[in-house]
Amino acid sequence: MSLHAHKLHPPTDRRPRYTHRQRVAYVDTDAAQVVHHSTYLRYFEVARIEFLRTHGFDYAAWVEREKLGLPVAENWVKYRSPARFDELLEVETWVAYGSRAFLRWEYHVRRDGKLLTEGFTVSPCTTLGGEVRRVPIELLKACLGEAYTDPS
Amino acid sequence: MSLHAHKLHPPTDRRPRYTHRQRVAYVDTDAAQVVHHSTYLRYFEVARIEFLRTHGFDYAAWVEREKLGLPVAENWVKYRSPARFDELLEVETWVAYGSRAFLRWEYHVRRDGKLLTEGFTVSPCTTLGGEVRRVPIELLKACLGEAYTDPS
Amino acid sequence: MSLHAHKLHPPTDRRPRYTHRQRVAYVDTDAAQVVHHSTYLRYFEVARIEFLRTHGFDYAAWVEREKLGLPVAENWVKYRSPARFDELLEVETWVAYGSRAFLRWEYHVRRDGKLLTEGFTVSPCTTLGGEVRRVPIELLKACLGEAYTDPS
Amino acid sequence: MSLHAHKLHPPTDRRPRYTHRQRVAYVDTDAAQVVHHSTYLRYFEVARIEFLRTHGFDYAAWVEREKLGLPVAENWVKYRSPARFDELLEVETWVAYGSRAFLRWEYHVRRDGKLLTEGFTVSPCTTLGGEVRRVPIELLKACLGEAYTDPS
Repeated sequence: MSLHAHKLHPPTDRRPRYTHRQRVAYVDTDAAQVVHHSTYLRYFEVARIEFLRTHGFDYAAWVEREKLGLPVAENWVKYRSPARFDELLEVETWVAYGSRAFLRWEYHVRRDGKLLTEGFTVSPCTTLGGEVRRVPIELLKACLGEAYTDPS
Repeated sequence: MSLHAHKLHPPTDRRPRYTHRQRVAYVDTDAAQVVHHSTYLRYFEVARIEFLRTHGFDYAAWVEREKLGLPVAENWVKYRSPARFDELLEVETWVAYGSRAFLRWEYHVRRDGKLLTEGFTVSPCTTLGGEVRRVPIELLKACLGEAYTDPS
Repeated sequence: MSLHAHKLHPPTDRRPRYTHRQRVAYVDTDAAQVVHHSTYLRYFEVARIEFLRTHGFDYAAWVEREKLGLPVAENWVKYRSPARFDELLEVETWVAYGSRAFLRWEYHVRRDGKLLTEGFTVSPCTTLGGEVRRVPIELLKACLGEAYTDPS
Repeated sequence: MSLHAHKLHPPTDRRPRYTHRQRVAYVDTDAAQVVHHSTYLRYFEVARIEFLRTHGFDYAAWVEREKLGLPVAENWVKYRSPARFDELLEVETWVAYGSRAFLRWEYHVRRDGKLLTEGFTVSPCTTLGGEVRRVPIELLKACLGEAYTDPS
C-alpha cells in the first residue's frame, strides 16, 4: 500500500456506507475525562461488523461457516478532538479500497457533525490459523456495491 | 455454596498464597479519575494465573494439553477505597476452598498495606465446550498445599 | 446489607424496569470464544445508565451539574451459561432496593429468553472526591416509581 | 509530519530505549485465540510510561504537579504475527522524534526476538483542558538523551 493510504478522503462515488450511532460508556473514558484512545478501535470494529450486516453480509455466520476471518493487519487513527461520557457519536465507515488481497475500511467519528476522529483499518482474509486467502467475491461486492469492478 | 461464602477471612493455616504487584495503567482508570471497577476482575485474573505458576502449575500449558479450563462461574467484589493511575498495588490471592467440584479464590488488593478492594471468584473445571469435569488432584494440591486433604 | 441480598428475585410489584439490547462485540470475547466475564460489568453499567435515562433521570447531566456520582461499591455476578460473538443479548435491570443510603440494581442477561447471567451492583451517592452523600429523593423516585415510599 | 513518518526504523544513535516485559493476560485475547489488536495500544501506553520512569521522568507526578499531559493525537500499528495467552512479550520503545511541538514514540513488540507488531504514537503536550503547550525541555532531554540538541 502506498503512503498515500494515509490521506483519508470520503469517496465521491456511490459505494456503500454505514453510520453507527455509538453512545460513550463510562468505562470507555479515562482519568483525563475523555474517551481513551484505544476505545476508538473498539468503535471501529463494531461499525465494521454493522456495515457488513447492513449491506447483506452476516460476518459471524460467515466466520462460523467458512472458518475464515478478516483480522486487522494495520490501522491508523488521528484524534482531532476528544469525546466524553454519554455523548452520542456517529461512526461513519466505508470500504475505500477492496481487492482479492485486502479490504481497507475508513472511519469518521463525528459528534453533531463535527469530525472528532478519523482512521483506517486494513484486513486481509485469513483462515482461523492465520493463512492468507483471497477475499471472496461476495464480500467484495457487499463492500463495494456499485464501485465493484470485476477483477478479471 | 452457602451464603457464608460472602464472609472473606484470610486463612490462618499455611496454604499457598501469592501477592502480585500490579501497576495501575492509564487505561485502567475512568472519568472519575480512579480505577474502573471492572478492572479489578482483570487484576484478579492475572493474580490467579501467577498464583498457579508460582505454586508449580502452568495454567496455559495445562489448558493446551488437557483441553480443560477454569472459567469464572461466580464472583463478588467489595470496593472499599479507590486506586489511581500509576499506583503500585498488591493483589494477594489464595484458594479459600477447593474440592473436586470447584475452587474458590479470594483476593485482597492493598496499597501500602491499606485494604482497598476484596473479592472472590469461583471456578469449576470444564472442557473447552463447557462440560463440567472434576478438578484434577494435581491442581488441588498446587492450590491447597499443606491444607490439602485426600478427598477419599 | 443482609446476606439475603444474594438471593436475586425479580420484584413482583410495578417498579421501573428497563431492558437493554446488547450486541456482543468481538473485543468482548476471549480465547475461550465466549464473552469474558469482566465484560458483564460493562454491560451492567450501560444498562444502568439507560435505565435512568428511560425513567427520566439524565445521569451524565446530573453528574455535571451536582458534582455527585453513583460509584459501584459492591457487585456480584453469577455466570450460568456463556454468550458468544455477535449474539443479541437482553440485559434487564431494576432497582431491587433503594434508600437514602444506597441503590441496589439487579440484572438478568438473557438470550432468546434463556437466563445466561445474573448479578447485582450496589451504589451509594458520593461527591467526586468520594465523600458519601444521601441519595437524592428525585433519583429514588425515578428508580422506584410506584414502589417509592416517603422515607419520613 | 511527513508521510515518511510511516517508515519505522530503529535509531542508530544512542538515544534512550526501554524494553517492557509484558505477559499476555487472558482478557487480552479474543475469540480468534490471539491478542486483540486494540490491546497493543494498551501495551504501548504502559511501555511509554515505564520508558519515562526509567529515564528519570515520573509521568504521574508531573501530570499532578503541572496539570499537563501527553495525550495520543495519532497512532499507527502494523500487526505482523499474532501473540497468544500467557506469552511473554518484549515491548521496546524509544522516541524517534522529539521537538517543542510533539514527541513521537516508536514500538517494536517481539517474542523470542521475532518482531510481531510495530507502531508509533504521536503526543503533543497539552493542558488537562486540551490546550496545546510546548513540550518541556526536561521532558525532551529525558526522552532524547544524547540525541537531544538545543532547539535555539
